[in-house]
Amino acid sequence: MFAKLFTPYRINSMTLPNRLVLPAMVTRLSGEDGFVNKDITDRYVRYAQGEVGLIVVEAMAVHSAKSGPLLRICGDEFKPGLTELAQKIHGTSNSKVVPQIIHFLKIARNGWRQKIEDLSIADIQLIIEQYGQASLRARECGFDGVELHMAHAYTLSSFLSKKNKRPDLYGGKSLDNRMRLPLQVVKEVRRMVGDDFPVGVRYLGEECIKGGYTTEESQVIALKFAQAASPTIRGVDYISLSAGGKFEDAVHKDGEVLYPYTGYSGDRCMPPMEYPDGYNLHMAEAARRMLRRYGFETPVIATGKIPSPEFAEEILQNDRADLIGMARALLADPDLPRKARMGESDKIVKCIYWNVCKALDENFHQVVCGLWPKDLIQAPRSDDAIAPVWSVPAPLAVLVRSGNIRLSWKQATDNEAIMGYEVWRSDDAGASFSHIYSITTSMWTDHLAASGIRYQYYIRAYDLAGNKSVPSNVVSAELPLEVALPSEAKPIARPSFLKSTASPVIERSSTIAAVSIEESLKS
Amino acid sequence: MFAKLFTPYRINSMTLPNRLVLPAMVTRLSGEDGFVNKDITDRYVRYAQGEVGLIVVEAMAVHSAKSGPLLRICGDEFKPGLTELAQKIHGTSNSKVVPQIIHFLKIARNGWRQKIEDLSIADIQLIIEQYGQASLRARECGFDGVELHMAHAYTLSSFLSKKNKRPDLYGGKSLDNRMRLPLQVVKEVRRMVGDDFPVGVRYLGEECIKGGYTTEESQVIALKFAQAASPTIRGVDYISLSAGGKFEDAVHKDGEVLYPYTGYSGDRCMPPMEYPDGYNLHMAEAARRMLRRYGFETPVIATGKIPSPEFAEEILQNDRADLIGMARALLADPDLPRKARMGESDKIVKCIYWNVCKALDENFHQVVCGLWPKDLIQAPRSDDAIAPVWSVPAPLAVLVRSGNIRLSWKQATDNEAIMGYEVWRSDDAGASFSHIYSITTSMWTDHLAASGIRYQYYIRAYDLAGNKSVPSNVVSAELPLEVALPSEAKPIARPSFLKSTASPVIERSSTIAAVSIEESLKS
Repeated sequence: MFAKLFTPYRINSMTLPNRLVLPAMVTRLSGEDGFVNKDITDRYVRYAQGEVGLIVVEAMAVHSAKSGPLLRICGDEFKPGLTELAQKIHGTSNSKVVPQIIHFLKIARNGWRQKIEDLSIADIQLIIEQYGQASLRARECGFDGVELHMAHAYTLSSFLSKKNKRPDLYGGKSLDNRMRLPLQVVKEVRRMVGDDFPVGVRYLGEECIKGGYTTEESQVIALKFAQAASPTIRGVDYISLSAGGKFEDAVHKDGEVLYPYTGYSGDRCMPPMEYPDGYNLHMAEAARRMLRRYGFETPVIATGKIPSPEFAEEILQNDRADLIGMARALLADPDLPRKARMGESDKIVKCIYWNVCKALDENFHQVVCGLWPKDLIQAPRSDDAIAPVWSVPAPLAVLVRSGNIRLSWKQATDNEAIMGYEVWRSDDAGASFSHIYSITTSMWTDHLAASGIRYQYYIRAYDLAGNKSVPSNVVSAELPLEVALPSEAKPIARPSFLKSTASPVIERSSTIAAVSIEESLKS
Repeated sequence: MFAKLFTPYRINSMTLPNRLVLPAMVTRLSGEDGFVNKDITDRYVRYAQGEVGLIVVEAMAVHSAKSGPLLRICGDEFKPGLTELAQKIHGTSNSKVVPQIIHFLKIARNGWRQKIEDLSIADIQLIIEQYGQASLRARECGFDGVELHMAHAYTLSSFLSKKNKRPDLYGGKSLDNRMRLPLQVVKEVRRMVGDDFPVGVRYLGEECIKGGYTTEESQVIALKFAQAASPTIRGVDYISLSAGGKFEDAVHKDGEVLYPYTGYSGDRCMPPMEYPDGYNLHMAEAARRMLRRYGFETPVIATGKIPSPEFAEEILQNDRADLIGMARALLADPDLPRKARMGESDKIVKCIYWNVCKALDENFHQVVCGLWPKDLIQAPRSDDAIAPVWSVPAPLAVLVRSGNIRLSWKQATDNEAIMGYEVWRSDDAGASFSHIYSITTSMWTDHLAASGIRYQYYIRAYDLAGNKSVPSNVVSAELPLEVALPSEAKPIARPSFLKSTASPVIERSSTIAAVSIEESLKS
């Protein structure tokens, strides 16, 4: 089933037990002091229990600039906490762990923000040194590598950006100029940590803003990170691609600092449920193709709404990426890797990409999954093997009301506790059902249902361990098709070439077709 | 070579001579009076000379609301001009022609714009009637069909939009509500023109704005247009998909009315050169898959940076779309279909997607192609068969200066006139060259070149008929790779585990690799 996904993968000196990666994700679990605390530790140990190949710990600052709750790696005082974090993760499973390290600029509640154009050469010099020193600390703390944050709306991403307006050698139209600081950072980090310490970089495959860069440049950026601008310096050891998440299209809320995931590019960064799976995969493909063409085996991590181990395996089989990043799917169920490895994919608690986590983050709350039981700040954990059962033979009922299809059901029972219900839908007369939603209550309205389609539904209950009940009874419903024409009440002149007032019933499927050249000449 | 592209294709009562479509494109060639004039006629006759399968004439208003230069079909006084236009096109070649008909809301220079929430039921009723009457006029004028404009920032698109905020049965979350007016329009149009008159609809495959709809809904919209909300009414005869072009992210210029193609969604509507070819194809694929699943053979027209007949054929061969829309490529060379059909693809004047046409439109100028000779308002036409020749054996020279690669060349000569020069580039040691730019002068700077890549270039001169010279000599260049580290001048402590100060030369291509389970267990 998973010929590639569970093959170990070596990146420089670390060997991942599998190809699944947890990309850095804001938790807002740390205090403003920047020290590792119990909640943070619990969060990442939980991922290690789930056996994900690589854990990228959320962004920690290389400098001490003011911010909300954010981890820090900007001084030696943070090392004991980080060392303990790395040790606890290593003591849990074979998961490898790297911190993502970040530099960001100042920002104010009135909408003002510092721009990269405001930085002096001395400021730039300091950023380089801070990245170097933070990377060295990462090594000294026992992490397996370090990831340089050059994505979204932060300092190094703003240098890479096509919107970089610096008039000097660090900016303007030239990609070489825009990459100058990012490459200087790579060079300094390598100088500090040595060649045998894995150094990754996360940056944007597309900026997803007006005039932003696309894969045309991001594939060249990948190559240049691998080359490290020198034949004698080891380049980055992996490329991790994100998309969007920019300030340029962010929506400013009065009294709050501008938050870079609130615009269209924020949706492209964390595609919500209405986007197709793997929407950003073409970016990883482009970067990987470029690297291979130049003889670099540098692995590329694809991210962006990759929901299942089955889809992940398919991506690997088709050589579209080397490693698979899952953020929201692993938040929903940190045990996804372990369950898949054990052949228990069916027990995975499936992310529905409704972005409760994203909304919590945007509103400066602790980030949890909306599918978890209320008040938990970590994913539940259970080794129970007994599935929920239905108390009646046909628990599911359907009702069409006010142009919507409403499902309601009798609750299932479980030896431990019911965690939620999966809703499965078919729009092809039951030939195939897709999981379209999960919910903790016992009713749901299908706002996506449209008239003209006959839908079938069933639900499955699941418990804290992800054990699923058998499917409920199947119900079906269809919204009324007819759309009244207001003008029908009024007499309006109809053209004379139309003889009858009632439109004839027509054959739908055969009225339009490609015709051969001979036929068309006859017509 | 073109097994499908030049197969005639029947849509209801019209048979297209091939699968190429000119989508509606603003020309700004009409006067504010809305009547057909000589420039408009010349523009569309020129496309007919080029033998494109279907010409969709630029949007013409179904109502008389004030606007800039825009064709009108809102009264019988416009019929003589439109009739003559259709006749002239039909008299030129087998190209079929349909007008695109549009309703738009009011807009002011101070940024105010009327919203669909402001429309009364009587206003809505009037829109339905206006579409019906305009469609009937299209038939009476001798057009082969009619296309209903429901894309971009205009009235019917705003109803379809997920941003539709009407609180009544014409809006809100429900897709059925949002489709109510569009389907009433289809129903009324069908009532007026009859079942045997082709009716197409152009709408968005994705809105490409925050919270806009995606293919999840646009595929259902396709189905509902085919169903026409009734088993007794013939639905639309073709689906044409665009993307973006919305007001929501448009950039307001002081003193100008808000223009809906000025934001990110405007780029997605007309993807500029930095986007991959066929960037919006997944939208056509999704709609087509949905239609076929429900037994509808309704053809789907894909558009969005489809540059060549070869790529068009590939799309058809892979069943990703039924018809291929090319706007900018046909503006650059209206003879593209004829040249391809005659096996003379090499004579096509290639669009470079630098969007001079888009910029002219945004600035309210007549829309021409930046590749055309200066001062022409129509594409040049020539039957000359003699190609340009180089006056010296090695006309092309290259220079690396200020971090850029600059090409310059001796001009070629031609029996008629040189139209321009194509620049071809290789980044894989000459294994493959791509056409990356065209220019009318005799020098060019490659702003996309990045250090670390060895580029090779050649150029070809072409004349007004598109005859190409032999390739020039090949030149090669590479930008300097080294990035100086400002910190190198300063002594910074290096970690003690690093023994030597110089980084060792490393083998690049074999340092990172997937390892087998056995190997990884050993490491």
